[in-house]
Amino acid sequence: MKQKLTLIGFGTVGKGLCEILKDKSQRLNNSYDFDYEVVAVADFAYGNVYNPNGLDIDLMLEQANAKQKFTKDLSELDTVSLIKECNADIVCELTYTDLQTGGPAIDHCKAALSTGKHIVTSNKGPAALFYPEMKKLADENNVKFMIEGTVVAGTPIINLTDGPLGGCEISRIRGILNGTTNYMLSEMEKGMAYDDVLKVAQDLGYAEADPTGDVEGFDARGKVTILANIVMNAGIKIADVSCEGITKITLEDIQKAKEQNARWKLIGSVEKKDGKVIGSVAPEMVDLSHPLAGVMGATNALTFTTDLLGDITIVGPGAGKIETGFSILTDILSIHRSQ
Amino acid sequence: MKQKLTLIGFGTVGKGLCEILKDKSQRLNNSYDFDYEVVAVADFAYGNVYNPNGLDIDLMLEQANAKQKFTKDLSELDTVSLIKECNADIVCELTYTDLQTGGPAIDHCKAALSTGKHIVTSNKGPAALFYPEMKKLADENNVKFMIEGTVVAGTPIINLTDGPLGGCEISRIRGILNGTTNYMLSEMEKGMAYDDVLKVAQDLGYAEADPTGDVEGFDARGKVTILANIVMNAGIKIADVSCEGITKITLEDIQKAKEQNARWKLIGSVEKKDGKVIGSVAPEMVDLSHPLAGVMGATNALTFTTDLLGDITIVGPGAGKIETGFSILTDILSIHRSQ
Repeated sequence: MKQKLTLIGFGTVGKGLCEILKDKSQRLNNSYDFDYEVVAVADFAYGNVYNPNGLDIDLMLEQANAKQKFTKDLSELDTVSLIKECNADIVCELTYTDLQTGGPAIDHCKAALSTGKHIVTSNKGPAALFYPEMKKLADENNVKFMIEGTVVAGTPIINLTDGPLGGCEISRIRGILNGTTNYMLSEMEKGMAYDDVLKVAQDLGYAEADPTGDVEGFDARGKVTILANIVMNAGIKIADVSCEGITKITLEDIQKAKEQNARWKLIGSVEKKDGKVIGSVAPEMVDLSHPLAGVMGATNALTFTTDLLGDITIVGPGAGKIETGFSILTDILSIHRSQ
Repeated sequence: MKQKLTLIGFGTVGKGLCEILKDKSQRLNNSYDFDYEVVAVADFAYGNVYNPNGLDIDLMLEQANAKQKFTKDLSELDTVSLIKECNADIVCELTYTDLQTGGPAIDHCKAALSTGKHIVTSNKGPAALFYPEMKKLADENNVKFMIEGTVVAGTPIINLTDGPLGGCEISRIRGILNGTTNYMLSEMEKGMAYDDVLKVAQDLGYAEADPTGDVEGFDARGKVTILANIVMNAGIKIADVSCEGITKITLEDIQKAKEQNARWKLIGSVEKKDGKVIGSVAPEMVDLSHPLAGVMGATNALTFTTDLLGDITIVGPGAGKIETGFSILTDILSIHRSQ
């Protein structure tokens, strides 16, 4: 069966997805009877293109990689109109994250869902700010709002809790949700002070010039909100999640933890307490005997406390072009296999 | 939709499954439109019973817990005939594991699959000895042979690799597949010698009076064979998997590993090499920076090396009445949700 795809955003994740789809097409066809066609792409830099019979993806990758505008199948439609009018089954929203307003991604999601198209997105904006509204709109239109890539890239979290762990009740989630800060804390153990480590993280491209989103815990807070709403149906907002970053952690703190057989981690946490769901982000001393304590560098991890299996921990990459591209593929396949 | 179940074996796992189904019925109905009825049970100790309209599970649990034979809906049919003639959609094979012959479970699996009934099993015998044959028989009859519980109880392994990781190519699996030996190695780190630790493990019920199956690595070897065949389609036999247990590990070895920032683990491994799949079980010194090194006590864990996500590690329980019962539920739900 052929899935018609529209990609909104043709940056790192969009191009990564196209490369994976090309590489895997034969295998996906053999294993899951999965075939695809990209019918529309909208990108701020390269232009909007549409061909209901399928675009020339090789050419588009070539042009985008050379930073050139698209030349074939150009469309006059603005992005929202393109989403509404195209013949796609699934719209992949892959633009930049805005955790203040959710825009412009939120308009793209509404346009797709309201015209009966599935949304697959790695954009934390709509998921963290408007999950309950998007889920309702998707349900009303009998389509899905799929957001595996918004938490820990392609490492299976949402498809794990909804799939193989679906029969369990999850009462608590604790995790290392931000690779940059976990890298920084790992390096500080080697004796480098906070400011020096931040500089290295920025040089390596882990932290941005303005590192606030990572080091103050805001990125992790967005992910905690998404987990609370999708796994525990909490209906909470970002502002409901308490948030403390790693900026106050000193080398003395690191040393003190070591003496207590523990290690500082920035822990995002969601917990059911007395019928309420409480979300928080804060640095914690994690005992070295806990699986989360051994997760070093830019790797991410989550521990789910369940009624039937006790603790289940999953460890994997939290970022990356191919890793995030895979999260989009895994949601597309999930939709495909449920049909 | 109602799934009609037949349970072969009404011991720990069978009773655990019934308890979970009773506790969860409302939630499973709300979430997945899942309803069930147990139509037949065959147990060596309690007798064979059949009622095409559903058995009285509360009464049966009461009788089995009191070690009394079943009294209601008794059937004259032997177990294989009962499997063939009952009106079940899914047969749960929950008898004891025999890694030499696979019997009697293998006859139960054949009877079910050949009469168009799905098999869900936590029995390592048929899975480790005859996976390719069972898969073929299932495919021919358009039903499934589901074996999540044969590896690491209900911790999602097979449903994870087939589900959320389905888009990845897995080139290597390395894991702690036996809780008893992992408990023993963890305790030896505290300074207790092998023979003393084995005695404690036996007292705690982790190890059996004849501990060979665990300490010589045979249990782990069965699981490696299953993983090789189901995840990598290897078509290998138990005898193809090299196997060394932990009986030669001394306190000196443990100390030496510590000095090298490492820890001994009994590692089951499956790897694709030059087009061939190689399986092995052997003690290894695992560097403390690896997620598997931090897995202590009776807990199990597996690391999958993938093409798109790099390493994904999952950590969870490897045994237990409810944990294994859940593995059966998760496979039943997987069948249910794919319909």
